Amino acid sequence: MSADILKKIDLEDMKNIALGGAFLGTGGGGDPYIGRLMAEQAIRANGPVDVVDVDSLADDALVIPVAMMGAPTVMLEKLPRGDEANNALKSLEDYLGKKADAIFCIEAGGLNSTIPIAVAAGVGLPIVDGDGMGRAFPELQMVSMTMHDITACPMVMADEKGNSLVLNTVDNLSTEKFARVITIEMGGAGLIALYPMTGAQAKKAILRGSMSLINSIGRIIHEEQAANRNPVHKLSNDLNGVSLFEGRVMDVDRRTEGGFARGSCTIEGLGSYDGESISLEFQNEFLLAKTADGKPKAITPDLICLLDLETGQPITTEQIRYGFRVIVFGLPCDPQWRTDHGIELAGPRYFGYDLDYQKLEALN
Amino acid sequence: MSADILKKIDLEDMKNIALGGAFLGTGGGGDPYIGRLMAEQAIRANGPVDVVDVDSLADDALVIPVAMMGAPTVMLEKLPRGDEANNALKSLEDYLGKKADAIFCIEAGGLNSTIPIAVAAGVGLPIVDGDGMGRAFPELQMVSMTMHDITACPMVMADEKGNSLVLNTVDNLSTEKFARVITIEMGGAGLIALYPMTGAQAKKAILRGSMSLINSIGRIIHEEQAANRNPVHKLSNDLNGVSLFEGRVMDVDRRTEGGFARGSCTIEGLGSYDGESISLEFQNEFLLAKTADGKPKAITPDLICLLDLETGQPITTEQIRYGFRVIVFGLPCDPQWRTDHGIELAGPRYFGYDLDYQKLEALN
Repeated sequence: MSADILKKIDLEDMKNIALGGAFLGTGGGGDPYIGRLMAEQAIRANGPVDVVDVDSLADDALVIPVAMMGAPTVMLEKLPRGDEANNALKSLEDYLGKKADAIFCIEAGGLNSTIPIAVAAGVGLPIVDGDGMGRAFPELQMVSMTMHDITACPMVMADEKGNSLVLNTVDNLSTEKFARVITIEMGGAGLIALYPMTGAQAKKAILRGSMSLINSIGRIIHEEQAANRNPVHKLSNDLNGVSLFEGRVMDVDRRTEGGFARGSCTIEGLGSYDGESISLEFQNEFLLAKTADGKPKAITPDLICLLDLETGQPITTEQIRYGFRVIVFGLPCDPQWRTDHGIELAGPRYFGYDLDYQKLEALN
Repeated sequence: MSADILKKIDLEDMKNIALGGAFLGTGGGGDPYIGRLMAEQAIRANGPVDVVDVDSLADDALVIPVAMMGAPTVMLEKLPRGDEANNALKSLEDYLGKKADAIFCIEAGGLNSTIPIAVAAGVGLPIVDGDGMGRAFPELQMVSMTMHDITACPMVMADEKGNSLVLNTVDNLSTEKFARVITIEMGGAGLIALYPMTGAQAKKAILRGSMSLINSIGRIIHEEQAANRNPVHKLSNDLNGVSLFEGRVMDVDRRTEGGFARGSCTIEGLGSYDGESISLEFQNEFLLAKTADGKPKAITPDLICLLDLETGQPITTEQIRYGFRVIVFGLPCDPQWRTDHGIELAGPRYFGYDLDYQKLEALN
């Protein structure tokens, strides 16, 4: 889809961005409500945020992604105080002895597409039109930056009590492992600043246009909802997506484990899917959709989105409840994720599923 | 006991220091064998280490304690590579933007009285004649520095793979909690540099003369062993100690849990203790000695030392085995530990024992 280029984020845009972020968040990336409130408060206090194309950055500019890390289930109960993300950014700047020139979203998601906007508004910096995943993933090494040998460290983690830590690990998978146990000790979630990179590195590594795409997706959802149409049909056309299933949630098994929201849900078919069922496996994000007889319908790193059947509203893994009437929607991931390195980082075997990755288009 | 003042640590002294450290380590503080090897290697390469009285330091001198943190059981299997402690020190110096003027032992123990000597020899710095506990304790906030409002942070942790982290937490108990989960992620043990303090702070806060005392204890044990006498009798006199029990270890329950070596052992009486039994509870260090009918004989923060019945050799909590013939020996802790703040930090209720602290001298 050719998204309209987003140049500036104001209060009005936040509705679209929170919604579009949640859509690409594939069930994770945090609750859009909280993130939207935080960003709106910051924009109200400090004015709109400039969105910049990565090519407009100087090669020696300092780009810093900020995000919330942890189980989305926890984030709903442990509200950020508001300044932890700024504190994480500031601590990383202090550690590097250099000020950031632009803020960046590590992933698409209701919370992690909006918290960086709140930070950017708070410190008066632009935000880069891009992200590191083109979706949400549960672990922090799962970013395009890893595929371009950019290290997550030095990484700063901060919590609402005032604790902060600087990590310097030997590789990005080790960063994830240390950051995860620290997140748990922080009560399940913490604010992070990581992958500090130069403008030159960002130009090579990031997925471009994500903020514009998220904004466009959110706008389409709102427009279609206003016209009483389910936005899935238009989004499916625009994004080369596949509508995988329609039905009613019959069973949800969800636990907060190892710092993640892990589990699965079973959906029984409605309408043309009557008599069939599909199950979705998740670790913060939806990772695998398969039929009752075990045939995969969509496999990570492709995107699996769960939407309300009536409104097309994205449903996060912590929001799913028995009885929800839903559409399961698949989207092809960014081509980088389909390389050997991408599959190794975020393919099904990394998550313990005994199957090879197959493209969404080949499965449906 | 009035220990001979130790002015310099050479190869010959290491035998005494490793042994004396293990004695005051009350079952914890790490295995003396590994620490002695590391310190001897460093002294052989770089020459003896000066021991300085804290009063000889400038008020603005930078004093940095280094130590190993983790379960002693793990330390036996995960040998330090040798440079992690130096790396931890260097990372903390880099973070502070200032070089250390002296090294310091956070606790007495076979490993944690000797690793700082290895570091001091490696970087050519003196070591302060003192420590932060006058014994070993399992948690890092349990130091005299905490009683004098000196913060553990910034603290650096390093492992043998090359990972390092800088902690800045809101209080010393939080430092312990974060450092503990990081230690576990490091495989059960890591090297740390923490409680950076000025000479002025050290003069107020530290327990003085510990290196000299440890050296004297080790020398007495060796001299008495050479004369075929059990050193307990002389040490008991010199240190105002109490011989609590003699017997044979009948049962050991030990598990590595939450980053600690936790458990208990039961000892059945020999000689004049025939027909009686005593049990010892430990979390890295021995914390409680009580008779079969539950009467306490020694309670943390007082020292409970387990020694070989024949040789007086200290036995660490990871070394205890069925059948060992042992003496249980009690020593009064430093008076600071008997204040309200000291009991709150390291008394029996902190460790979950439902009893009030009573002085060793009152119980026996």
